[in-house]
Amino acid sequence: MKHNIGAGNPMRAQFEPKAPYTAQHFAWSFADGVGTVTLNRPERKNPLTFQSYAELRDFFNALRFATDVKCVVVTGAGGNFCSGGDVHEIIGPLTGMSMPELLEFTRMTGDLVKAMRACPQPILGAIDGICAGAGAMMALACDMRYGTAAAKTAFLFTRVGLAGADMGACALLPRLIGQGRASELLFTGRSMTAQEGLAWGFFNDLYEPADLLAQVQETARALASGPTFAHGMTKTMLSQEWAMTIDQAIEAEAQAQAICMQTQDFRRAYEAFAARQKPVFQGD
Amino acid sequence: MKHNIGAGNPMRAQFEPKAPYTAQHFAWSFADGVGTVTLNRPERKNPLTFQSYAELRDFFNALRFATDVKCVVVTGAGGNFCSGGDVHEIIGPLTGMSMPELLEFTRMTGDLVKAMRACPQPILGAIDGICAGAGAMMALACDMRYGTAAAKTAFLFTRVGLAGADMGACALLPRLIGQGRASELLFTGRSMTAQEGLAWGFFNDLYEPADLLAQVQETARALASGPTFAHGMTKTMLSQEWAMTIDQAIEAEAQAQAICMQTQDFRRAYEAFAARQKPVFQGD
Amino acid sequence: MKHNIGAGNPMRAQFEPKAPYTAQHFAWSFADGVGTVTLNRPERKNPLTFQSYAELRDFFNALRFATDVKCVVVTGAGGNFCSGGDVHEIIGPLTGMSMPELLEFTRMTGDLVKAMRACPQPILGAIDGICAGAGAMMALACDMRYGTAAAKTAFLFTRVGLAGADMGACALLPRLIGQGRASELLFTGRSMTAQEGLAWGFFNDLYEPADLLAQVQETARALASGPTFAHGMTKTMLSQEWAMTIDQAIEAEAQAQAICMQTQDFRRAYEAFAARQKPVFQGD
Repeated sequence: MKHNIGAGNPMRAQFEPKAPYTAQHFAWSFADGVGTVTLNRPERKNPLTFQSYAELRDFFNALRFATDVKCVVVTGAGGNFCSGGDVHEIIGPLTGMSMPELLEFTRMTGDLVKAMRACPQPILGAIDGICAGAGAMMALACDMRYGTAAAKTAFLFTRVGLAGADMGACALLPRLIGQGRASELLFTGRSMTAQEGLAWGFFNDLYEPADLLAQVQETARALASGPTFAHGMTKTMLSQEWAMTIDQAIEAEAQAQAICMQTQDFRRAYEAFAARQKPVFQGD
Repeated sequence: MKHNIGAGNPMRAQFEPKAPYTAQHFAWSFADGVGTVTLNRPERKNPLTFQSYAELRDFFNALRFATDVKCVVVTGAGGNFCSGGDVHEIIGPLTGMSMPELLEFTRMTGDLVKAMRACPQPILGAIDGICAGAGAMMALACDMRYGTAAAKTAFLFTRVGLAGADMGACALLPRLIGQGRASELLFTGRSMTAQEGLAWGFFNDLYEPADLLAQVQETARALASGPTFAHGMTKTMLSQEWAMTIDQAIEAEAQAQAICMQTQDFRRAYEAFAARQKPVFQGD
Repeated sequence: MKHNIGAGNPMRAQFEPKAPYTAQHFAWSFADGVGTVTLNRPERKNPLTFQSYAELRDFFNALRFATDVKCVVVTGAGGNFCSGGDVHEIIGPLTGMSMPELLEFTRMTGDLVKAMRACPQPILGAIDGICAGAGAMMALACDMRYGTAAAKTAFLFTRVGLAGADMGACALLPRLIGQGRASELLFTGRSMTAQEGLAWGFFNDLYEPADLLAQVQETARALASGPTFAHGMTKTMLSQEWAMTIDQAIEAEAQAQAICMQTQDFRRAYEAFAARQKPVFQGD
């Protein structure tokens, strides 16, 4: 399905795609303010390639300017989320690259995580089956993650001779599940079961495989109903305060919330409350 | 009940209240070194107002100089903790304020959290029923939290069109319950149940409603028995090391603990141990 | 058992011990790339002394240059891990020291934690029975921790009149088990049960006492089989990114992983995969 990423604002014009968006290396659908990214090579459990990494990075960067997209769901086709970097299409070529080429690759993969953290839309992962390597990192880069009992999440970089330090794993994973559990997963590369993921705070909830995508899209629609400007500020601050002192974070939030208090959505909520109605947010 | 906040030390004199403390916008009681703050408008589930925010901020700031208060319990009257900022007395007026006025408000609310983190006394929350919005933030600003099965904690800023970034929530909540769970609560505004709060590390324990305050005050009395100087240093360092590197934190604790090793309470503990007695700490 | 710590590299020569290593104040054994440190005064539950602190600090510092040691297990003899600083041999003398002497002591204990975090080898704690005070901090300084149902872990500094701020506790413990639970343990000094430790992420797993050491050594041998250079980078980055922003951490990992992609172990893993074999890592 085609969808327009960003439109009409001169501050956004030079960055935005000039045409309705057509995904090349994944599937993209859009309805009710919710866009769904589906990793879509099910016969190989949806591996990433140089091309799909680059397109995903550019896509999430463009989302910063796509005010019509309110919330994003990331999922995989055919009962698996993502098997990570393709062994033949990525790992093989990497073994023959020069250092500048390697750094260009690792920066591209890291930029995908940065772009997922930087766009204002909440990103919800819908994760069934295999969720491995760079796929586990895409899951980790989501704001919330929903799985099934069959979800197997493995940060298996160590299995191919690499460090667990990939795309921000050593920073992000400990803040989700604790430093000790993260250390085990990153050193050993073992799979985290869905039940462990739920108990440890990696998954926010588990659903039946047949219900997973519909349930996550329902949560996404609820978030898409707003207040979207405020949601974008919540997301910005959750990343922005990562390494601030407590006092710096409190001052940063005093400023951020004062900004939100001058939105019309804040006034709409108050007026709806006074009229005993449900507020209808409009994002400004 | 009246109680003197700070007395007698020239370094504290210009800051301390000049008279025994009488709370205007909450109830204050004091016994055995333990002070209890009770949010006390039970017919409205103990909402906060401009006045009560300001008094709570000034009160916790004054506690820095109140060496007779050893530990503080914060609770709510009538089976609820706090319903947050009052819709009519706070939300309504905010919708008509200028930006400098809004920032003055958000800084006042943030300063309450800063003051609760900065005073040396451990603060224990005793939380039953509704614990919402700014009330949830007051709970989060405590050092430990004890609840009941009926406690419902909601960071519901998003429900009034605002960001989850309020009073430090995006910094504090992820460090208590993990980044993924915090993201869900802050984006959706949904209630965290008491059982979730216990499993996730928000609550330290749950009690029967009838026992809650007595149990928490008993823990508070145990902490009030000392070593209070060392407890104050523990509290300082738990905040101080928030954004330090590991090596910086270790050096900071080497200095902090060396200071504590020159207190009389350290010597008292050793002498009591050698005499097979229980130490009696005196706070110096 | 004697074992050579570091050998042959001119960059390491001036720092490395010149002879096979013989531990003075603990037991040291070595097999299959795995070294085991056993705190070994079981009649006193393996307390630490000035001498054993200093030797442990120097030992873990030397491990940075001991490329033959791939993984380290730390355990205690006789059914207990470690009772912490000896009351008669450490606490007593400290009560009579000058400030410079006290700071020399607290820096020595902190340097032990720094050295455990700085050496490239993953460190696995095998923890039965009493794990208290500085012993609990040694457990916390490990990368992973395995216990038994009888393990009792207490940060009991407060019981001797001191702050919970000791050897980095206020920084490390909250990142493992959450800020709220850490606050309780550090303020009250109470024991964390083994089941709490497992549920909260302090322990990675629990074993029967009779199986504990063998199980942990088996995990250690698996890690010792490599990729050890990458494991060392994982460990470095888990500490290095502690207080970085998300974007800084992602850039740091882009560089760290690019380095790992030029190791032979990465190529070996790819070639083994292509040949449908298990890779044999060699650490270069």
